[in-house]
Amino acid sequence: MPTPHTTESPSVDRRTFLAGLSGAVAGGAVASQFQTTARAQATASPAANAIAYIVDGMGQTQISAARYLNAYKTAPERFPLNVSPAETPTGFDAFSSRGSMTTFPDDPYETTTDSAAAATAFASGVKTYNGAIGGVQTSGGGFQRVDTVLERASAQGYATGLITTTEATHATPAAFAAHVEDRGNQTEIARQYIEETQPDVILGGQRRDFEADASNGGTLVDAARDNGYTIAETAAELDAVDDPPVLGLFSQESHLDYYLDRKNDPENTQPNLDAMVDAGVDLLSSAGDPDKGFFLLVESGRVDHAGHANYPAQVAEQYEATQVAGQLVEYAETTAEPTFLVSTGDHECGGLTLGRDSPYEVEYDVLAAQKATTSRLRDLLAGVRSADELESIVAAHTGITALTDREVAKLRDAPGSISTILAERAGIAFTTDGHTGTDVPVFAHGPNAARFDAARDNTAVADALAAALGVSL
Amino acid sequence: MPTPHTTESPSVDRRTFLAGLSGAVAGGAVASQFQTTARAQATASPAANAIAYIVDGMGQTQISAARYLNAYKTAPERFPLNVSPAETPTGFDAFSSRGSMTTFPDDPYETTTDSAAAATAFASGVKTYNGAIGGVQTSGGGFQRVDTVLERASAQGYATGLITTTEATHATPAAFAAHVEDRGNQTEIARQYIEETQPDVILGGQRRDFEADASNGGTLVDAARDNGYTIAETAAELDAVDDPPVLGLFSQESHLDYYLDRKNDPENTQPNLDAMVDAGVDLLSSAGDPDKGFFLLVESGRVDHAGHANYPAQVAEQYEATQVAGQLVEYAETTAEPTFLVSTGDHECGGLTLGRDSPYEVEYDVLAAQKATTSRLRDLLAGVRSADELESIVAAHTGITALTDREVAKLRDAPGSISTILAERAGIAFTTDGHTGTDVPVFAHGPNAARFDAARDNTAVADALAAALGVSL
Ligand SMILES: [Zn+2]
Ligand SMILES: [Zn+2]
Repeated sequence: MPTPHTTESPSVDRRTFLAGLSGAVAGGAVASQFQTTARAQATASPAANAIAYIVDGMGQTQISAARYLNAYKTAPERFPLNVSPAETPTGFDAFSSRGSMTTFPDDPYETTTDSAAAATAFASGVKTYNGAIGGVQTSGGGFQRVDTVLERASAQGYATGLITTTEATHATPAAFAAHVEDRGNQTEIARQYIEETQPDVILGGQRRDFEADASNGGTLVDAARDNGYTIAETAAELDAVDDPPVLGLFSQESHLDYYLDRKNDPENTQPNLDAMVDAGVDLLSSAGDPDKGFFLLVESGRVDHAGHANYPAQVAEQYEATQVAGQLVEYAETTAEPTFLVSTGDHECGGLTLGRDSPYEVEYDVLAAQKATTSRLRDLLAGVRSADELESIVAAHTGITALTDREVAKLRDAPGSISTILAERAGIAFTTDGHTGTDVPVFAHGPNAARFDAARDNTAVADALAAALGVSL
Repeated sequence: MPTPHTTESPSVDRRTFLAGLSGAVAGGAVASQFQTTARAQATASPAANAIAYIVDGMGQTQISAARYLNAYKTAPERFPLNVSPAETPTGFDAFSSRGSMTTFPDDPYETTTDSAAAATAFASGVKTYNGAIGGVQTSGGGFQRVDTVLERASAQGYATGLITTTEATHATPAAFAAHVEDRGNQTEIARQYIEETQPDVILGGQRRDFEADASNGGTLVDAARDNGYTIAETAAELDAVDDPPVLGLFSQESHLDYYLDRKNDPENTQPNLDAMVDAGVDLLSSAGDPDKGFFLLVESGRVDHAGHANYPAQVAEQYEATQVAGQLVEYAETTAEPTFLVSTGDHECGGLTLGRDSPYEVEYDVLAAQKATTSRLRDLLAGVRSADELESIVAAHTGITALTDREVAKLRDAPGSISTILAERAGIAFTTDGHTGTDVPVFAHGPNAARFDAARDNTAVADALAAALGVSL
């Protein structure tokens, strides 16, 4: 296990800070959440481990879409009569409790949250502005860091981990283990991971951020290695790691590939999310204080990106996310130590709807036949002029064989229009390339899970994690 | 109380019927739901009263929209920091349990349910085709009626009631107290209400259906009066009714007006939904077997219509629905007898999203300022050519004062375009004039409410109601 982090940044006690803030910037909402936290501090830890599983961009409709896709794949001949959760349960159905969650940020300009503000709420229990990682704006306009449940758990001897399908320094994991005014400062986030917070498991994309200079010379990758981290760059290398800590960076730039593209490309060396989760819980179980368990943040991060891009493959991305939800419940059920698991989306993304333009019908066969995202298809179709060749690529990767002349012409000029063709044929729609403000479902399992059989705010996730681990925020 | 109904239509026992159906038309989904019912039959009634509250067309996003509108109305100066359920709770937050529900029908052509199939699932616990009221299609293509929880409760001496803001014979109430192959046969539904099922309370719209001929001469209204029903045609007349049974029909044609139009028109004589609920529970408490409680179906039915029409006033309609949800929980909490309450939408309608076209922002001030629906505004704007007059009507009823020349021109030619103007300014969108297939939230309160802290199918509503009343289906 890495040495416990020491921080040189100022970090006031959250109680003192919020007492000053209460009624001013943050108002009663934060204050009342704080009271919940204060109560939680009094209770002993009921769980050995706590896992937060965030599916970035997941609202109710993404979950439902994956439910129907799963039922269609499971038994197309009985579809939709096999969609009932009793008949074809999905990963989220396995949680023992569920409720809803408000997601609004404390932002001067926007009512809909971004992933940074939402993840700061999950990690630290405070509302903040869009773009903030692990901190809030002070009345003077400065940036005030707030401690995170991962940091508090680490200080108490728990092993800690961050797993994501996005860049490892992306907003959701970052808010659990770093503090920056602007989520765009990703090399600083990498530096804080390696030099300060030092989680036992870091798995994600964009190695580039960790090739930045470390404070004491060399790169952050060098510094990590010096601190005992094993570096993994492929699924096979991750599989071979026997002991924590591990720094797994599976792409040089950007995120891991989308699920469909990862799964259907035999050359792809990136681990799937389920493999990262398997490796992560395994390594964390042997890390940290032997009397303590672990805290793990898992993010399925690209449901959000598919939503921003209005890709119909958002449903496939959610399908992987839902499978991993089931995997995590199974882990919580079968591991020897009591494990608290909470899962939610940080916000919906794209304004996905299951139906469009009148018909009472979604064609799940169209979604099930898709083997590549628009991202990959755009590469495959780029520069292709021949109608035959266009049609053959589309047929091979989407199952669509009856393109109109107009669609072919459009694909020739704008390969990304495959998204529109698929969405229209599937009968799904998007209304924005941004996030939407609908309340998201929240799921919990393990000790005290029933606290989420309620309408809660997203700050409740931090409170529940802290209570489960018996740490204070 | 009316005399207990006798029916001349064939009505096989549901167990026998489903045993034959199992594995064939309906398959495992229905069979497994049936097992749940069989278990429920063994338990004694834990509740004196059971209330089902259906908000037609309500998905998660409608609920969230009303939550934000409510928080905005409550304290605009603290918005959105007052949106947390702990800070500004809504009617649905008050329920002790919540979960999600699949809504798909058993339909040869459509994967998305209509209100008739969904209401039949709620009332009788079976999947059926879109358009069916209280029955299923047999393998031979005939129509096979299935008993409803309202009928079974009535046969056991419970008082029963139907309350809706739609036509009294509309699909949702009809499926609890009538059996027709096609929901369009509304005079037959009225006939079955009055001559067969005879609920103690019937409140809704479209008196015309009850002016049809009764079997023994005269109209159905006459027949109802002969059976002891008091007839009410206005809110004031309803208020004056002292004893059940009551037949309240508050419009000659069509539904009750939308909430905004009802509330803001001083000439309007229709009761609001909260007044119908107050009168209903009051009258039901004194009806039926004095040792038994009541079963009541309440529907807020026009969230659906606003969704079909893509009216931004769908949010206001949901606002009334959410207020009534709180009223019902309060009733369940304060009434002397244990009362089981379940509430859900039958499906989402319109594909509403809170956000559109990129911005992370919904302008709730625009929604809060609206004082008339598009339906009413279309009447007010019809034939108006003067720009000044158009602008003045729009300003008075929506608060919008800065119409563009293009918008004025559009309103002159198509007054209904006020919907688009409002939706764009509010930052909300719709994707269809039909229903969508997303799972809907379900809420429960009272004895055994926690059975809904789960992912369920819509047939579970019938099972829960039957179990609460100790009747078999
Ligand atoms: Zn996003
Ligand atoms: Zn409808």
